[in-house]
Amino acid sequence: MTNPSLPPEFSLIARHFRPLAGPGALELRDDAAVMTPPPGRELVLTADAMVAGVHFLPDDPPDLVGRKLLRVNLSDLAAKGAVPLSYLMTISTPRATPDSWYAGFAAGLAADHAEYGVTLLGGDTTSTPGPISLSLTIIGHVAPGQAVRRIGARAGDGIWVTGTIGDGALGLQVALGKLTDPTGFLLERYRLPRPRVGLAICGIASAGMDVSDGLVQDLGHICRENGLAADLDATAVPLSAQARAAGPDWLETCLTGGDDYEVLMAVPPTREAALLAASHAAGIPVTRIGTFHSGTPGVMLRDPGGESLALKKVGWSHF
Amino acid sequence: MTNPSLPPEFSLIARHFRPLAGPGALELRDDAAVMTPPPGRELVLTADAMVAGVHFLPDDPPDLVGRKLLRVNLSDLAAKGAVPLSYLMTISTPRATPDSWYAGFAAGLAADHAEYGVTLLGGDTTSTPGPISLSLTIIGHVAPGQAVRRIGARAGDGIWVTGTIGDGALGLQVALGKLTDPTGFLLERYRLPRPRVGLAICGIASAGMDVSDGLVQDLGHICRENGLAADLDATAVPLSAQARAAGPDWLETCLTGGDDYEVLMAVPPTREAALLAASHAAGIPVTRIGTFHSGTPGVMLRDPGGESLALKKVGWSHF
Repeated sequence: MTNPSLPPEFSLIARHFRPLAGPGALELRDDAAVMTPPPGRELVLTADAMVAGVHFLPDDPPDLVGRKLLRVNLSDLAAKGAVPLSYLMTISTPRATPDSWYAGFAAGLAADHAEYGVTLLGGDTTSTPGPISLSLTIIGHVAPGQAVRRIGARAGDGIWVTGTIGDGALGLQVALGKLTDPTGFLLERYRLPRPRVGLAICGIASAGMDVSDGLVQDLGHICRENGLAADLDATAVPLSAQARAAGPDWLETCLTGGDDYEVLMAVPPTREAALLAASHAAGIPVTRIGTFHSGTPGVMLRDPGGESLALKKVGWSHF
Repeated sequence: MTNPSLPPEFSLIARHFRPLAGPGALELRDDAAVMTPPPGRELVLTADAMVAGVHFLPDDPPDLVGRKLLRVNLSDLAAKGAVPLSYLMTISTPRATPDSWYAGFAAGLAADHAEYGVTLLGGDTTSTPGPISLSLTIIGHVAPGQAVRRIGARAGDGIWVTGTIGDGALGLQVALGKLTDPTGFLLERYRLPRPRVGLAICGIASAGMDVSDGLVQDLGHICRENGLAADLDATAVPLSAQARAAGPDWLETCLTGGDDYEVLMAVPPTREAALLAASHAAGIPVTRIGTFHSGTPGVMLRDPGGESLALKKVGWSHF
């Protein structure tokens, strides 16, 4: 009799990931999950990968790594106006990864399940001779045809962002020892994005995306996709008290650094009141930082006098 | 004016992956994809990761790597009786990866789009200091409640498999130089699984999974999940001519080696005729290799005289 004893990966899944499984996940005991799509809704799907040493630091607490993996994907859904539903995840880890790492990673995810109303649908665990490599595919839903897309902005639309810009980029500098922040706020913003889930922008924003690779670069994407120029008022960009405390030498890092996970939107003037109402309802602040207009696609950064400012670096490339 | 020039990852996506994008992918120009679920159908979702040096060899041709990544996921859908629809994919590659690798990888995927009727919905590309790490999440659909699950087998059900068992495991040995196969068949079976998409097993198989970690181990999973014992007739297990040519010393490798990507099913005797009809319709051979019965969960491997056989190794663990 060959005893069907279980290889270590099954024990790992049972201990740490089965408690995260939601409806349709079949307790992670099957090859696949099943899902009944919400009736009358369109699905919105996105996937992001995170690699140790590239997207997070190898000694980052594992619960924050798990939450960041989930939240960067939630942020993409938020920028589309989608309601998050569930996700699939693959994790590739070195054999020497201690059990406590998985426990912490799963605990972080569990905390965010409660916060964002999502559950785990399925996935895969495997070993790697390299750094920890994570991938997450999230599924959300919107009313049919209502997903906010990158395309749709028009000349005259205002440029709006949620929250504050630059905290994540400055937090990375804190983690690298290049900047100090006694409050711990910036480091936490780097390690733990706050996806703007719940801001009801469908039917309000004419275009949108989340700011992950730097405000100027990401705004440039919207310009290019829509054939529009953007006047960005540098002094209107919302900064946290901690980012302001870092001083003007760090402003460029704020505008180009990435890891913001705020929502960047084009909003027609006629819908500004609706945006402000949605902002109030969700408790998510929004700020107007400029205007789209006709012209050669690109971002013109202006100082308070309307003069253009030059930047050394536009944004962050993953390559 | 800050020119919104594109970082290398965008050019990579545009050149190699945009041509793979299907309906709802928004040409991979957005943060997320949209999908209208097929009306009245239930979705079936699964994700698998593949890492160079673990799941494929670093010098495997990139087109075959792409196809294998897609096909191992298609195989999971096939084992659930699901019709494939589309997929999201994340790829993490070393910076030195040549453009020709991406071109080959995408060409392999494109070939399989035509063969299996799937398209790319979205994903992410990123760099890694480690080996190439790939993750793919695939979406298929079935009639509501009809997905074939691992749970559902009953005592008296026959044990059936599609195709032939052991070719992939022997192909790996060929790749490693430990076995010769002048026909090239075994190596191709290792590098290019043939997922059994199209075998209409919903309503026929009482349980099913694909064989990826070794027939004996995977059958053990079905035993454990259903609280059943399995009598597996070693001589009934279908072997290719090339596997038979390798000789009896390789039989254990065939039964335990993995990388088969065939469908393993429990089929009640009353539905055998329906299975054979489905097999004929799809052009996918099926073979009965044993019987489930009541007893301590586990796999009893029997020789032609009904005597039990012992194995040195049960199957393949990814850890």
